[in-house]
Amino acid sequence: MNIILLSGGSGKRLWPLSNEVRSKQFLKIFNNTDGTKESMAMRMYRMIQEVAPESTVTIATSDNQVPQIKAQLGEDVGISVEPMRRDTFPAIALAATYLAKNGVRNDESVVVCPVDPFVELDYFECLKKLSLEAGKANLTLMGIKPTYPSEKYGYIIPVSDEPVSAVSSFKEKPSFHAAEEYIRQGALWNGGVFAFKLGYLLDIVSSRFGTCEHDTLYKRYGDLEKISFDYAVVEQESSIQVIRFEGQWKDLGTWNTLSEAMEETVSGNALADGCENTHVINELGIPLITLGINHAVVAASPDGILVADKARSPELKNYVADARPMYECRGWGEYKVLEYKIHEDEMNSLVKELKISPGEHISYQRHRHRTEIWTFTEGNGELILDGVVKPVTRGDVAVITPGMKHAIKAISELHIIEVQIGDELTEDDIERLDWDWK
Amino acid sequence: MNIILLSGGSGKRLWPLSNEVRSKQFLKIFNNTDGTKESMAMRMYRMIQEVAPESTVTIATSDNQVPQIKAQLGEDVGISVEPMRRDTFPAIALAATYLAKNGVRNDESVVVCPVDPFVELDYFECLKKLSLEAGKANLTLMGIKPTYPSEKYGYIIPVSDEPVSAVSSFKEKPSFHAAEEYIRQGALWNGGVFAFKLGYLLDIVSSRFGTCEHDTLYKRYGDLEKISFDYAVVEQESSIQVIRFEGQWKDLGTWNTLSEAMEETVSGNALADGCENTHVINELGIPLITLGINHAVVAASPDGILVADKARSPELKNYVADARPMYECRGWGEYKVLEYKIHEDEMNSLVKELKISPGEHISYQRHRHRTEIWTFTEGNGELILDGVVKPVTRGDVAVITPGMKHAIKAISELHIIEVQIGDELTEDDIERLDWDWK
Repeated sequence: MNIILLSGGSGKRLWPLSNEVRSKQFLKIFNNTDGTKESMAMRMYRMIQEVAPESTVTIATSDNQVPQIKAQLGEDVGISVEPMRRDTFPAIALAATYLAKNGVRNDESVVVCPVDPFVELDYFECLKKLSLEAGKANLTLMGIKPTYPSEKYGYIIPVSDEPVSAVSSFKEKPSFHAAEEYIRQGALWNGGVFAFKLGYLLDIVSSRFGTCEHDTLYKRYGDLEKISFDYAVVEQESSIQVIRFEGQWKDLGTWNTLSEAMEETVSGNALADGCENTHVINELGIPLITLGINHAVVAASPDGILVADKARSPELKNYVADARPMYECRGWGEYKVLEYKIHEDEMNSLVKELKISPGEHISYQRHRHRTEIWTFTEGNGELILDGVVKPVTRGDVAVITPGMKHAIKAISELHIIEVQIGDELTEDDIERLDWDWK
Repeated sequence: MNIILLSGGSGKRLWPLSNEVRSKQFLKIFNNTDGTKESMAMRMYRMIQEVAPESTVTIATSDNQVPQIKAQLGEDVGISVEPMRRDTFPAIALAATYLAKNGVRNDESVVVCPVDPFVELDYFECLKKLSLEAGKANLTLMGIKPTYPSEKYGYIIPVSDEPVSAVSSFKEKPSFHAAEEYIRQGALWNGGVFAFKLGYLLDIVSSRFGTCEHDTLYKRYGDLEKISFDYAVVEQESSIQVIRFEGQWKDLGTWNTLSEAMEETVSGNALADGCENTHVINELGIPLITLGINHAVVAASPDGILVADKARSPELKNYVADARPMYECRGWGEYKVLEYKIHEDEMNSLVKELKISPGEHISYQRHRHRTEIWTFTEGNGELILDGVVKPVTRGDVAVITPGMKHAIKAISELHIIEVQIGDELTEDDIERLDWDWK
């Protein structure tokens, strides 16, 4: 089976654990069967390998998620990188051409599915069925048996209640009463899962974009129309069938739904006593004590602290202000902001803790507007300053003034406390330079 | 009027805002009449000056509170410094000899009162009355009209219900039902307020300790018996009168009682919506969002995060672990711990932000077990390294290896990010040295 997992962007609905660069599908908050923690992405990938070990899995994502995907799923998973975010049709189109480039034939089935529903193994059995049925109609969708008249989902009205049925019509996010009525008529939720033969989609891609060649599409990606798969493909197609799925399917997009799926109520440096139906997650180093709080979520990270009644948590996005991320996973490792301060004379200072993975390096670069002071607190590395390479270890200090070219490579895992001082401390103030990394 | 304010030690009951070195009486959480924030100590000192501007006020305290007292009450307030904590009798004895040393005569009245009851101006009118009545009996106490049958307080049973009455008996922390019975008999709460003529107390001090000379008592303070004023004086005395006080008196020792007295429900970088009877205090730089949480206290500081139902808050001390303070006010300024980490090889690293007040300095010292890297992020100062003085300013860096003698003096307010690295990062690893501060 060829599966494309759509790994979407991030929002504020799971703040402070998700931020501009950390999406919910990478939060390690579920228990794996072996007792370790896993994220939604890891859980889905593990279950695919369990149910359909012969599958090829390709993640369709943007480049800022690549380090997290490799860190969580390993190096073997296929990644179709969108150079920037467009919408679902360009993302699926790019991933389809990626499959073609990697040897998938036009008559092979492809199943596209979001990376973040909370499901069990039977969901993947159903995906296998979609893969088998693909091609009997041009499009094969998964229809999920509704558990309540949700106003958040799209509905598929099938012609019959057979396990596989033609589609009568689609209904977008209805009112509560309309949803009740659709469900009486046998409607199913549209879970955003599509199966088709690769050649079918490549024809549509060619006719819309003038090419189905991956590298060309990648280069022109920024110019592609922002259009959803539903609009570009599903609504134009008359040959559609739907396969019923009656197992567990949960959309864990907000704290109240997410916490329902968390087996442990307390994680991190936290203590909770006398708390009913309350989930506590602490990613900070300082202790968190929760006493006698019911039906709430308490979450703390370098980005902030949330204390919310679960019923109120879906409104969270209205309260979270835009702010620079205080924690980020990068290709070379990760960083955390310890302190950010705007001084009275409008100069800024920022204290970061960087962790660089063994063998990784930060690119050779220079800044115009800031001095960086690096104090090495653990591990060994190679520091490059204005072209001179020098070994560094715990206790060493590097002062990098504006204009000074610098890079750092970790030999063992390298921990650095970085103090930035300057009138403009932004990610834009980086000029990347060439260096011959052996 | 001569007033001795007893400024007690600290506990865990208001964690994370109070810690080993920051006591509740110095938390700036009340609104002053001019819109600024004030602490319990500041509020009490302001009210004394309003009701009895001719008063001399002496704070009896330990030396680690002196910087906070001077920072909050100014340089004019008298401070009787206990070299270490004993109990209330040695503390009051030392303060009484401090008054004598500073010219208070034996026939002058002295009123002793805790620094932390939450009271209004009428309380200080009552203190004046105690001062006037002192000497008519050997001891004059304040008796507070109870508002409920508390099991936490001591009770004074007066002979009559006159405004000033002789005392029939004392009852220590009774059961609820006994308290109800005492209140029916006209009992008053013992608010820990005592008035006497200075000579009366000095005689008792002399007979118990063999001296009433301040400097001698100070030197021998560590050897003095740990004994309470109640036990050493009140229980031995038969000539006692009590003055009724019927105004507001609140003991704000736990979060539920403290928050009742706070006018603002939200302070610091925090937002609360749809919260009833909930108080939110955030001393951290990161945002805190509270949604739909009722009857709770949410408090965050560098020491930790508390989310507690107010009714559960009196139990807090049972949950707070012993830990190094992460925030401290010192004579020279203040510091905050940004990150503390024990590495896998048992080396430690600690990141601190130091703020040194203009004109102040950290003592000349050296460490055996750690390297300190100082990055100056704001202000100007004078750095002393192995006897050499050097001006420093924003962007400068000092690397202080083990054994290196060092000190720093602020010219303008000086901000430093300090990274400590070593196998033992404790306050004990300081050897203080002499330096001629001009």
